[in-house]
Amino acid sequence: MNVILTDTKNQIYKNEFNFVSKKNKNCSVKKYVLNGGQANGMDVIEVNNGNLSFVILPTRGMGIWRAKYNAIDLKWDSPVCGPVHPCFVNLDTENGLGWLAGFDELIVRCGLQNNGAPGEDVVRHNDGKTHQKLLPLHGRIANIPAHFVSIEIDESDETKITVTGEVDEAMLFMPHFRLKTTIETTAGSNSLKITDEVINCGTAEEEMELLYHCNFGPPILEKGAKVVAPIIEVAPRDKIAEPGAEEFYLCEGAENGFEEKVYFYNLAARENGETITMLKNKNSDKAVALRFNKNEMPCFTLWKNTAAVEDGYVVGLEPGTDYPNNRAVERAAGRLVKIPGKSSYKITLEMQAFDDAALIAEVEKEISEIQEDVTPEVRLKTMSE
Amino acid sequence: MNVILTDTKNQIYKNEFNFVSKKNKNCSVKKYVLNGGQANGMDVIEVNNGNLSFVILPTRGMGIWRAKYNAIDLKWDSPVCGPVHPCFVNLDTENGLGWLAGFDELIVRCGLQNNGAPGEDVVRHNDGKTHQKLLPLHGRIANIPAHFVSIEIDESDETKITVTGEVDEAMLFMPHFRLKTTIETTAGSNSLKITDEVINCGTAEEEMELLYHCNFGPPILEKGAKVVAPIIEVAPRDKIAEPGAEEFYLCEGAENGFEEKVYFYNLAARENGETITMLKNKNSDKAVALRFNKNEMPCFTLWKNTAAVEDGYVVGLEPGTDYPNNRAVERAAGRLVKIPGKSSYKITLEMQAFDDAALIAEVEKEISEIQEDVTPEVRLKTMSE
Amino acid sequence: MNVILTDTKNQIYKNEFNFVSKKNKNCSVKKYVLNGGQANGMDVIEVNNGNLSFVILPTRGMGIWRAKYNAIDLKWDSPVCGPVHPCFVNLDTENGLGWLAGFDELIVRCGLQNNGAPGEDVVRHNDGKTHQKLLPLHGRIANIPAHFVSIEIDESDETKITVTGEVDEAMLFMPHFRLKTTIETTAGSNSLKITDEVINCGTAEEEMELLYHCNFGPPILEKGAKVVAPIIEVAPRDKIAEPGAEEFYLCEGAENGFEEKVYFYNLAARENGETITMLKNKNSDKAVALRFNKNEMPCFTLWKNTAAVEDGYVVGLEPGTDYPNNRAVERAAGRLVKIPGKSSYKITLEMQAFDDAALIAEVEKEISEIQEDVTPEVRLKTMSE
Repeated sequence: MNVILTDTKNQIYKNEFNFVSKKNKNCSVKKYVLNGGQANGMDVIEVNNGNLSFVILPTRGMGIWRAKYNAIDLKWDSPVCGPVHPCFVNLDTENGLGWLAGFDELIVRCGLQNNGAPGEDVVRHNDGKTHQKLLPLHGRIANIPAHFVSIEIDESDETKITVTGEVDEAMLFMPHFRLKTTIETTAGSNSLKITDEVINCGTAEEEMELLYHCNFGPPILEKGAKVVAPIIEVAPRDKIAEPGAEEFYLCEGAENGFEEKVYFYNLAARENGETITMLKNKNSDKAVALRFNKNEMPCFTLWKNTAAVEDGYVVGLEPGTDYPNNRAVERAAGRLVKIPGKSSYKITLEMQAFDDAALIAEVEKEISEIQEDVTPEVRLKTMSE
Repeated sequence: MNVILTDTKNQIYKNEFNFVSKKNKNCSVKKYVLNGGQANGMDVIEVNNGNLSFVILPTRGMGIWRAKYNAIDLKWDSPVCGPVHPCFVNLDTENGLGWLAGFDELIVRCGLQNNGAPGEDVVRHNDGKTHQKLLPLHGRIANIPAHFVSIEIDESDETKITVTGEVDEAMLFMPHFRLKTTIETTAGSNSLKITDEVINCGTAEEEMELLYHCNFGPPILEKGAKVVAPIIEVAPRDKIAEPGAEEFYLCEGAENGFEEKVYFYNLAARENGETITMLKNKNSDKAVALRFNKNEMPCFTLWKNTAAVEDGYVVGLEPGTDYPNNRAVERAAGRLVKIPGKSSYKITLEMQAFDDAALIAEVEKEISEIQEDVTPEVRLKTMSE
Repeated sequence: MNVILTDTKNQIYKNEFNFVSKKNKNCSVKKYVLNGGQANGMDVIEVNNGNLSFVILPTRGMGIWRAKYNAIDLKWDSPVCGPVHPCFVNLDTENGLGWLAGFDELIVRCGLQNNGAPGEDVVRHNDGKTHQKLLPLHGRIANIPAHFVSIEIDESDETKITVTGEVDEAMLFMPHFRLKTTIETTAGSNSLKITDEVINCGTAEEEMELLYHCNFGPPILEKGAKVVAPIIEVAPRDKIAEPGAEEFYLCEGAENGFEEKVYFYNLAARENGETITMLKNKNSDKAVALRFNKNEMPCFTLWKNTAAVEDGYVVGLEPGTDYPNNRAVERAAGRLVKIPGKSSYKITLEMQAFDDAALIAEVEKEISEIQEDVTPEVRLKTMSE
């Protein structure tokens, strides 16, 4: 079964959609529209594979709002009472921090022209002149609604649910990127897999940045929770992250007035580029793992914001094409993706949830095997020092 | 009867709601959604107590759009054809004056981070650094939709209608305020009473400003209309308000090219803080009075914008926690409210309408009694001179 | 028949409207609402006179999205997947180029406070002080929804369809313009006629700029397509437009990396001010002509953006009250319209489509007659040199 929910070009739109699998009674897909408050008019798609359920937000660039694996909530409690319709988000406000007014998702894409800290950067327009412009925090893609959304349900073998979306980041004279995403899951699994293709629809080569801001609160996050990863090198982003840098992987309990600490990783990977990072709770019986390919996303960033629960107690695992510095910094470091005209760049990201200590131990073993004989270099000072 | 109209957390939303009292046939509550133009998608609640009716705008932060008492319209004709959905208001545009694109309400809250003139102010983020940012005119709260709205109708005694709303002004790393408002009225009365609680949902102490911009046009406003108030001291805001400062309380007729004149009051009050200000027409047979507590709102501002009817002929009575100067000025003067983390600040404001000279005389007498033996100091020059 | 579709003041709104003429079976009017993506919630009116059909966008200031005359598409393919709801357009972003995020229309009005390049200009507020502010590219009017829309169908003679709309560009203390537009067409004709009245609703005189950005892609636009016009003088806007300025009227094929070339015309006109410009394809058998009055719109601008199809292959014919320079430039050149308070300025613009070589030759003859004995001055350098 293949159902188009939204196709603005062909004026197709379904307010509601409901599917319950006959093969797997607990498998379902549900589309509806939110009403009221800052969520008014937002499209929502709930996918449930029986064990893992998650909520997709077509109106917010096909981000994933929250998920649940058996009894484990995969989400965090942002001060923002979301989800928030992009019409209430002015990216440029607050010196380019306006993106935060809509930020409460589990997985949010940051890009496509830029991600990371807001700030001025120089760009070349097609009038041949260079322009200085404000790049807003984490770019535009999370605040653009998908113009195409479809759902495919394949029950030939195990029930497999695939949600496809297309989101255009475009303006005349500017880069025209099309994000084509598929988000898929299989009945009973603990996993969702995102396959993104960023198409440069224009004819000129364009710089691209894409980072997946994956954010987890309790119950996986708690005092003593750990981030496990195969490491070549890791370093604090700035002075604030230096104290405690030797325990960069360790999460604290919620603390009033805690200032965010960010660590930049150079991950070890298998020969084919595959790598894994995992956040597990103190007892190692609840975890979430991210699987991706270092050839696609060479950079990994850990965001520890273990502030008070009321202020947003959260840890972010952020695989990306780059580190979330201002784009000028990333350009100088040679970390911008350049997509030729009419070409594209592909990224896959799998999120797995676990509530079984044995399975978590297996992932840890996988990570150890990737680490193998690489001696991780843990820097206690920022790279620039 | 208690009905929840909006609760985004629990995905409750009612498009329509209609109540007509059986006890008081003229008492009614009506909720509907506006369509078309800049009002498209806005929630509206009309409350009618038989004599006084008023329109609440949940989509604009629970502001009160307009009201009517018997034959008297309580409203003004802004050049803006409202009500205006916040998605059409860019607060930062026009050097921070963008708020004006949505401004046509009877009672609009200005806050919660700031009110008054737009301008730069220095703030401290939780990264420990100070940042300079643009504070837009009158802040954000009036352009944020309520995420919770309910209606309570109590007919155990006189029919009493209470509308409750919650509006969050929040971003990660920034102050997280929750405005909890109840707006209540009783069958047949001439009064509506606003009880606001501003909750600092975060853990750190935050600076707060809140002012109620209450705006009245004809028929109460006319040449010879007067603002009556118990005064300790009153002063023009700036040079423009100095000419005519001796008759600060007197309203002019509509005049092409009139430039707004603003006066800052230090009001006299009863021992418990209660005070009253009133705008009455020339003949003293139509009036509107505001009752509030000086302990909650120590500042009162009079805005005389007696421009041409086409340009917005209006007078604003503005009780507030502060004067509507740039926040830096108010901080220096010690007039910012500081709300500790997880604490709140309460304000009540009652608006009464009158079409009876005897009752208006009674309110004047009340005001005289508050004035008592205080000799009002009327400054003809700005305070800073 | 006269039907009001939208009247926000009187809370009238029709979600849908359908009319099919009994007299002319192919004549129809259809109103509906778009759903999904960036078009969500937009009102659309499709008018079909049997030969010419066109789509009006009340939500985007009564612009005309696209049209079709017999087999000829009148439109262009912007990188933007429109139509785009104004709530997704931040005019101030990208240094004032944010308007481009919504730009994909056939005919879009640029104004009313300014059109043309973004930039700082000095304005005088009613507080008597001068302020510097950013004027965003092409002004605000195209991103404001109409608050009033009606349709009149007159079948007393030939079926005549007239769509009326009102759009307010207003803020307290700022210019208050009301655009009153009628867009009309007659059964079987090749023409639509726009009659606009810009009303200064305020009492003070205001500066006004209005330009009609009429944009055409294939099939009329192709390599060898020509812009025909009666010319007193024509000049390149800038250095980029100088190379090839001798063939300013000639259109190129789509070319990767082409940089837009803009030419400013001083048109010849009939004694009563009537003038005509036309874009015709290479074979002179497909064309579109604009008829307007030089007394109303003294300036005409040609925008050749013959970039790759993927990047927006388009030519713009732009009659206007001014040239699309920064407003300060136009003021200095004496080209701003000044509308006294409570007065208005009228403009008519007719668009005709042709698929018949003989009729196109007739229009060319008309243009020749207007050119008559005026010798066109073709400047190869910008005026300022």
